[in-house]
Amino acid sequence: MAHDEIHLKKNEDKRLRQGHLWVFSNEVDTNRTPLDQFAAGDLVQVKASDGKVMGTAYINPQSLICARLLSRKGNLKCGVNFFKERLTTALALREKLFDKPYYRLVYGESDGLPGLVIDRFGSVLSVQITTVGIEIRKDSLIAALVELFSPTAIVMKNDSSQRELEGLDLESCIIHGELPDPLIIEENGAKFKVDILGGQKTGWFYDHRSSRALLATLTKSQRVLDLFSYTGAWGIPAALNGANEVVCVDASESALALATDNAMLNGVADNMQFIRSDVFDFLKQARQEGQLYDIIVLDPPALIKRKKDFKQGYEAYRRLNHLALQVLAKHGILVSASCSYHLSAENLHEILRSSGRHIDRHLTFFAYGGQGGDHPIDPAIPETAYLKTFFCTVSASL
Amino acid sequence: MAHDEIHLKKNEDKRLRQGHLWVFSNEVDTNRTPLDQFAAGDLVQVKASDGKVMGTAYINPQSLICARLLSRKGNLKCGVNFFKERLTTALALREKLFDKPYYRLVYGESDGLPGLVIDRFGSVLSVQITTVGIEIRKDSLIAALVELFSPTAIVMKNDSSQRELEGLDLESCIIHGELPDPLIIEENGAKFKVDILGGQKTGWFYDHRSSRALLATLTKSQRVLDLFSYTGAWGIPAALNGANEVVCVDASESALALATDNAMLNGVADNMQFIRSDVFDFLKQARQEGQLYDIIVLDPPALIKRKKDFKQGYEAYRRLNHLALQVLAKHGILVSASCSYHLSAENLHEILRSSGRHIDRHLTFFAYGGQGGDHPIDPAIPETAYLKTFFCTVSASL
Repeated sequence: MAHDEIHLKKNEDKRLRQGHLWVFSNEVDTNRTPLDQFAAGDLVQVKASDGKVMGTAYINPQSLICARLLSRKGNLKCGVNFFKERLTTALALREKLFDKPYYRLVYGESDGLPGLVIDRFGSVLSVQITTVGIEIRKDSLIAALVELFSPTAIVMKNDSSQRELEGLDLESCIIHGELPDPLIIEENGAKFKVDILGGQKTGWFYDHRSSRALLATLTKSQRVLDLFSYTGAWGIPAALNGANEVVCVDASESALALATDNAMLNGVADNMQFIRSDVFDFLKQARQEGQLYDIIVLDPPALIKRKKDFKQGYEAYRRLNHLALQVLAKHGILVSASCSYHLSAENLHEILRSSGRHIDRHLTFFAYGGQGGDHPIDPAIPETAYLKTFFCTVSASL
Repeated sequence: MAHDEIHLKKNEDKRLRQGHLWVFSNEVDTNRTPLDQFAAGDLVQVKASDGKVMGTAYINPQSLICARLLSRKGNLKCGVNFFKERLTTALALREKLFDKPYYRLVYGESDGLPGLVIDRFGSVLSVQITTVGIEIRKDSLIAALVELFSPTAIVMKNDSSQRELEGLDLESCIIHGELPDPLIIEENGAKFKVDILGGQKTGWFYDHRSSRALLATLTKSQRVLDLFSYTGAWGIPAALNGANEVVCVDASESALALATDNAMLNGVADNMQFIRSDVFDFLKQARQEGQLYDIIVLDPPALIKRKKDFKQGYEAYRRLNHLALQVLAKHGILVSASCSYHLSAENLHEILRSSGRHIDRHLTFFAYGGQGGDHPIDPAIPETAYLKTFFCTVSASL
């Protein structure tokens, strides 16, 4: 049985032809194919105005992104076998990249699975679904995961605010099996306890792995400040690789408790300090006291979540980077990150450069880190790229 | 004694204020400050139209880029001490990044030394000067290098065609000391013989170091094809890290002779083949024979040297990538690089994506490699970024 069709307006097939997977509601020829004939999650065949098949999408008439392509073929069946095939391809890439089963297994559109993110913590899978199209096929997805991975546990970590745009409830629950306690993962030669249900997002941020590995090569005998440290993913490998001192600062007591556990787990607690504080307040006080750090990691949570927050968020990034540069030692290294999709790399660079100029310092940008290979960027889908990390040293003005 | 001045036209100070170091001749207010009063290489104070000091530059009235800033201060003295200071800052960064003295020590504008590139091969320095402003201060530079590094040899590798734009002769010569024979460097755990005087550019390409390191983590038990292999910088670490077979293809007999020496030096000659061939011809024949490789490295020399060569060069990149994808095994990895400044990352991505579509394959881009930290990019100076390397896997079309 062929799927029902939606027809795009003239020239509105361009984005899909260039490799993107999204259809916006104003691109559909709703005179020809009204959207309200569909239920959220229905599969449709997407056609250009000339009738050419663009592929199979799931639809949500209530959402601004009203359809997301699952395939370039028009007659896709989206059951257990579909998920198995996509998961197998995603797994093949990760197995090339990583020796051990700790990684983002599925990264949405980049893995041909829009609306789905899965992080793998060894035998535990943490699943985030953000669209109705995936939500109503959850049983097929779970069946495919169980068949391919025989997981100890599958957790649904469905607390993203994106779900609300699709009319979905928020929930965090174990949907299969039982969680090991503690759940321990490995990254960059260190071990970490992960709290999936109580933690942020899927419970862990694999995206910075390669930047953290680069940091660890630079920390020998250095005094390191890890701002917004969360559970220690930057600071602990830094300490393991010979930092004299690592100071972790975070506002969350539970994150710091886990970070402290993790420091002990890795035998580096003696070289680490954990300070519960607002990061702005901490930096202002450090500046007053004339504290200087050789390396500062500034990796805040997304300060610009929606486009309309840009101005306020930009100012927060600016203040943070400006303050951080003021407590950085001569020839010190600043690692400045942003996971806000709406703050471009150019924005972050301009913040750094102008902050440097303001205190009469020259910044040399020696590395640019982005998402690890388990968060592949599809250059045809700009929304798949969100993470930017500048590594720079600071010297006297030219 | 203050330097003579050049005044910019109104609003033509914008680029300098945003962090760039270049002044184009049409930006100078030549009614107020004629350029022909200066000799090539003279130091001048650059001023905005409102009289604000932009810094000290060296000038070349004959060149389109008529001045390059050396400092944001207006009264710079450019003698031995100037070079020592800039070299010390450049060295401080490299010593943070690398355990051993094998790296690009100076990368032009990014290190505050426009017109100068220096590669360090242990106790040997290979120097490229591309502007009159540096050329006439060569003695101060050499004195600074001798004082800081006590080098065994300094080679002037001044064969870049950029020199001709500045009215400089081409030359390759040893200006200080004596070259060791053989000269051996280390990169990514492998050893390489380098032929500075007979080789391309400074004799070695350090810029791909981090991408080559990433490749080496992927090669275990794989069949690897290294196209435009030059002296084996990609292929040899691949073989050292467990590749079953590495096939190096290059048109240059002398490059392959050195690559063969290097394979023996690293004890991997048994797993490596060296084929002298035009790469297009090789790929066409491999396709005819149905050869398939698990990993293909496509790292051609700059195929677009000047903007006006764009169309022809783009087509060459397209054909190469298209051919390479046709001899790549299922789930194989293509590492596709371009060192042409005029081919953007977006251009190279479009070539790859459209080539994939043409043969009904989907490409997943899992890593983007650029210049190593010894080729720092100054985001305010787009010309400092030239290298792009996409790592992608190839699977069935979505």
